[in-house]
Parts: sequence; structure tokens; C-alpha cells
Amino acid sequence: MNAILASTSTLHSQDYLEYLIPHLPKLYKDVAEVIFIPYARPGGISLDEYTLRAKEAFAKADIKIKGIHEFEDPEKAIQNAEGVFTGGGNTFLLVSELYRNRVMAVLKQKLKSGTPYMGTSAGTNIGGLSMQTTNDMPIVYPPSFQTLGLVPFNINPHYLDPDLNTKHKGETRETRIKEFHTLNSPPVVGLREGSWLELSDNKVTLKGDLTARIFKKDKVPFEIETDSDLSDLN
Amino acid sequence: MNAILASTSTLHSQDYLEYLIPHLPKLYKDVAEVIFIPYARPGGISLDEYTLRAKEAFAKADIKIKGIHEFEDPEKAIQNAEGVFTGGGNTFLLVSELYRNRVMAVLKQKLKSGTPYMGTSAGTNIGGLSMQTTNDMPIVYPPSFQTLGLVPFNINPHYLDPDLNTKHKGETRETRIKEFHTLNSPPVVGLREGSWLELSDNKVTLKGDLTARIFKKDKVPFEIETDSDLSDLN
Repeated sequence: MNAILASTSTLHSQDYLEYLIPHLPKLYKDVAEVIFIPYARPGGISLDEYTLRAKEAFAKADIKIKGIHEFEDPEKAIQNAEGVFTGGGNTFLLVSELYRNRVMAVLKQKLKSGTPYMGTSAGTNIGGLSMQTTNDMPIVYPPSFQTLGLVPFNINPHYLDPDLNTKHKGETRETRIKEFHTLNSPPVVGLREGSWLELSDNKVTLKGDLTARIFKKDKVPFEIETDSDLSDLN
Repeated sequence: MNAILASTSTLHSQDYLEYLIPHLPKLYKDVAEVIFIPYARPGGISLDEYTLRAKEAFAKADIKIKGIHEFEDPEKAIQNAEGVFTGGGNTFLLVSELYRNRVMAVLKQKLKSGTPYMGTSAGTNIGGLSMQTTNDMPIVYPPSFQTLGLVPFNINPHYLDPDLNTKHKGETRETRIKEFHTLNSPPVVGLREGSWLELSDNKVTLKGDLTARIFKKDKVPFEIETDSDLSDLN
């Protein structure tokens, strides 16, 4: 597999995809056109608006983008894709639309056969075994929580450390992931903003400047360094 | 209906249910025993542990508690209940268990006929039309997102104002609710910690010291004061 699974599309005080653009030419080498999946619609923007935003960012790396909704048959569009990028937004909406448009199965098959892929946020969440460690609101009821399983674990994008000074009593991210592990066994990678997973051949590597936090069922969570190999985390 | 739907069980630097205990004798007047629904299991604690915690708090108001899981037939337990309390935790787990144990329908019917009810956090979320404005992780796949509909709108407990100083790029609560409204029409009450909704006869009133934030589809959100009447918000 060849993929970048990034925690976030945008870093503080940067432009959309700015820190990822330098990595696109290598990932999408020799790809004439990348199919963009805008289904997650961040903040409810339209599919066209979202595709335009991705198009403008990818243009900085001289890569062409076309929205999957611009094709008559989305399943066939993925079947013929040379490269795919799925943007962030609401993961429940993204997963619902992937199933409704019969894209989930063909996308999984294409990516497992090596078609280059980038995901950010919700687009990264679906790279895990299930979407069950998303931070998003269940604004729509998807037919399943199962996702692509490009990696043998789950991902929590936008990972946030507990705020030790807060008076707010809502659950911390760590507590939420602990609750996930009372009912599910896959490890969870808490991916901070600025980190990404690089999938190259059969290797999964942590990239970016930050450590990531690993949660295993019934174990104390721990940090891993940049360039750590996560291929065997399951 | 007679209910308290509270944003949170616990306020900063207070004991469990401390600020709600003074209101229990009036709500559960002449109730010999309150049935506690511990299904949401905060942080994954056991049903017994959670019930003990509720039992100890309710003892301060001289009210007896029994866990629904201590009955052989949970549906019948609710059918015969004189009062009900649902604690917080994970809303996906709570809703899954309410359906699995055939409690959702009978609970709705009992509460609509006037049986006193208190909910905190997840227990409040299910008082809305659906659980689709929960903040929780989808750690289990429920058969439906539809809930009790004690009020004609949705509730977002633990409502959090945007942190204007953060560098984190995850969605704010307001953005998440806006995304809900791109696909759904019910208003959403953002209930801050320390606020609760009082349901008395057919009236819904905001209680506690804080304002609440009202989100309506395609409208600018606005604040309402304590003692506001929300009966007609739909």
C-alpha cells in the first residue's frame, strides 16, 4: 500500500494542506488525476465548494483533482482511479455516503492493491479497522461502522491531551478511548495534529515531528517516537 | 411529565450529584424506590459499581435506588417503576443496551405518563428526539439513534463554548451542531454544566445559574436566560 493518513488537513496558522503538499509528488508519482472524495463536507459545505478547495491546494504541487461526485458512476470512478484523496469533515456522513454510493468495497480493494491514497481527519479515520474512534457527532446513521482497514488498528485523529487545568467535566479523549476498549480489542493510535502515518509497501511508519500515543486494551497508554514502525501493532 | 434533564452529574470540585440532591425529594415525592439505569458505564465501570455510586448519592436525600440489572426482567422493572434515574457515560452503549433489553419503548411510555425521571449527561441526551447530538465515541453500533423524545428538540449536554485561544484544529462544538443541522431539522439546546431542564406537567424550563445556547437550522445561535420556557421549541 501507498498512503498518507494525516491527523489533520490544516495546522495552526497554515493554509489548507500546506504541510502535506511537499509530500504529494512522491505519493502521487505519475498520477494524471487524483479522485477527491468530498463526502465528509466539513461545516456542511457543498461537494463542489469542497472539491474546489482541494483542487487549489493540489495545484500547488501541480496535481490535478476531480471530485467523485462529478462522475456518473462513483464505483466505476474509484475502479479506474490512479490516486485517491479523502478530505475531513464528519466521519458518520463520510461512511454513510461511501456505503450508499457503493464505494467502500471497491476503494478498499483498490488501496490494498497499491493505488496511492491520502486521507486527512475523517479520511484518515476510515483507514482504520472501524470508525469507532472518531471524534465526530453522529449526524447520520451509517449502515455499518466498519471501514477500510488499511492498518491493523484504529486511529484517533486530532488527538488531544487532557487539559489538566479545565473545570469541564466532559470525558477526556483518553477516557473515551478507554471506554472503546471495554468493548473492542484493536489498539488505537492517538495521532496528534502534524503527525501522519506513512504506508509504504507493507510498512506503517509514524511521520511528522510529534510523538503519538498508543492505547492497547487493558494496558497503560504509551508514547512512540517519529519514525517508529507500527506495522505489527494489532 | 416530571423530569430533570441535567447537563452533567458532577460539577467541578463537587461530589457526584451534589448540586442536584436538593431537588430530588420534590421530583421523587412518595417514591419508595427509584430504578437506576447504569447501562452507560462511564469509564467502563461495572453495572454494580455504578449503581453503588448512585445509591450512596441518593442516600443523602433518603431515597432508595435499585439497579435495573438486578431485576430478572428489565422491561417489567420499568413497567412497575415509581421513578427512574439514568446516569451518564457512553450514549452509544446506553442506547444499545436500552434497545437490547427492550427498555426504550416502555421507558418512553412510562415517562410520558408522568413517572418521575432524572437523567444526567447520556441520561439527558436520550431525553431528546435522538442521540445525534451526543459528544460520545461510537464504541458500539446501536440499532437506532432514536431516543425518548421527552422534549421536542435535541440536547447537547456538557455544552462547551469555542476556545478562542486554542491552536487545535478539531471542530468546535458549534461547528459540530451546525453539521447536524445540514442533515436534520430539530433545534438543539446546548446545555452548559450546571444547567438542567425541568419538565413539569407540559412545561419545559431552563434551570440553574447559566444561560443555554439555542441552535436552530439556518439561524444564528442565541442565548436564553434561566427560567426561560422551552415548551414550544421545535
